[in-house]
Order: sequence, then C-alpha cells, then structure tokens
Amino acid sequence: MRIDHIAIAVNDVEESAKVYQKALGADSVEFETVESEGVKVAIIHLENTRVELMQPTSDNSPIKKFLEKRGQGLHHMALETDDIEGEVERMEDCGVQFLGNVRPGSAGTKVTFIHPKSLYGVLAELCAHPKE
Amino acid sequence: MRIDHIAIAVNDVEESAKVYQKALGADSVEFETVESEGVKVAIIHLENTRVELMQPTSDNSPIKKFLEKRGQGLHHMALETDDIEGEVERMEDCGVQFLGNVRPGSAGTKVTFIHPKSLYGVLAELCAHPKE
Repeated sequence: MRIDHIAIAVNDVEESAKVYQKALGADSVEFETVESEGVKVAIIHLENTRVELMQPTSDNSPIKKFLEKRGQGLHHMALETDDIEGEVERMEDCGVQFLGNVRPGSAGTKVTFIHPKSLYGVLAELCAHPKE
Repeated sequence: MRIDHIAIAVNDVEESAKVYQKALGADSVEFETVESEGVKVAIIHLENTRVELMQPTSDNSPIKKFLEKRGQGLHHMALETDDIEGEVERMEDCGVQFLGNVRPGSAGTKVTFIHPKSLYGVLAELCAHPKE
C-alpha cells in the first residue's frame, strides 16, 4: 500500500495551482476535469507522490459542500493498491466501511472511498491504476 | 521535495493505531512522544511515505485545540527537503509565510511550519532529516 496522492479542496484551482507550484518548486502542473466527481483537478508531481488541488465544477459536487462547511484545506488521502477488489474484501473483513462500490475513475483507474468513520475522521480514497 | 508524512489528529493514539495498522495492512507501528509539540505519535510506514497519528498530551497542545474545533481528521502534510534553511529562504521569496523559525524536531530533525493562509487552508510542515 502506498500514498497515491493528497487531495486539497480549493475555490480556484488555477490560482492555487500557481501558488503551490511555486511554493513546492514543482516543474509542472497538469489540469484535468473529472465530470463524474464534479471537479476540476490540478495535479502537482512531487518526488514520491502527488498533490491534487480540486475545485468543484457543479453545485452538487461533494467538494462544493465540503468547501461550504469546512472551507479550503486538506480533503482526503488516496491509497494505491495493485488489487483493489482484494483490498476492499480484506478491509471489509477488518470492519472497514466503504462509500459505494469500486467504480471507474479518471485515466483508467478504479476507485472507491473508505468512510471517514472507519478511519477516525479521515476520508480515504482507495485506487488502482491500469496495468501497464 | 517529497511528502515525508501525512499527520492525523486523533483522541486515542493507541486505539486508532490498531485500526489503521489493520486497515492499511502495515507490518508495524512505532510510538513516540514529542514533548516540545505536546503530542504522542503513532508512526505507520507505508511503501513510499508515512502516516502519523497524533494525540495531544497536554491541554495547551495545538492538537488539543484542533480536536476541539474540528474533530478528528487530517491535520497537516509534511514536506521533506535536504536543505531546510535554503527552502525557507526560497519560499519566503515566493511570499510564503512561516509559523516560527526552523527548530529542532524529534529524532534529530529540523522543522518549521508553513502558515495555512499561504497554502489555501493547508497546514504544511517543512522538515529535514539528519544527514546519514
């Protein structure tokens, strides 16, 4: 298990990406819109993982609700595994609860989310990248 | 620049460490008390970084105040650099504001914190490990 990325909710992904890129000394930023999750994402590559800034693209995006309730800041951490179905089964056997089934994410990934009540208030994404 | 760890505020570090260890399938957990920061920490090693659970050890610990205000959950991300003084200078030139000077952390590290207002609501630790 490894940390795939750290996700941060922001109001303006273009503006905040400029600041993060400069502050973290990152070479480049990629932008991506994930319609299914209602977010526009800025992806900043660090040496061992990524930081992703997320701006809601619709009023019923969960990120929109998060921003209204908590303001900008850390939103979730994403854990990467090679075998997402196996990990979900293993975790469920440990009592971990999930928010929805494993489903297609962006760029060929498979994703699901661990309920924050299973991880002491932390929302965690579980994801698997497509095999090369 | 790399992510050194993700820090999570919890009420009971022993209990939550058991749950995290099982859920993340981690081999071991180390515990450490950092008197200067007023926290007891559980350190969980993942493949590319660490998750640290933090429980306040005193009533004036900043973690105590965070828990009272926001509840358990993601607290900060820590960025590792080889040259912390150089990075602070570089970041200050980009307009980044810091919370206090570079100071000794646990286990020979040097640490400082970036003000959340400089990173869109995200508290970030900047740290350097002792040279081998």
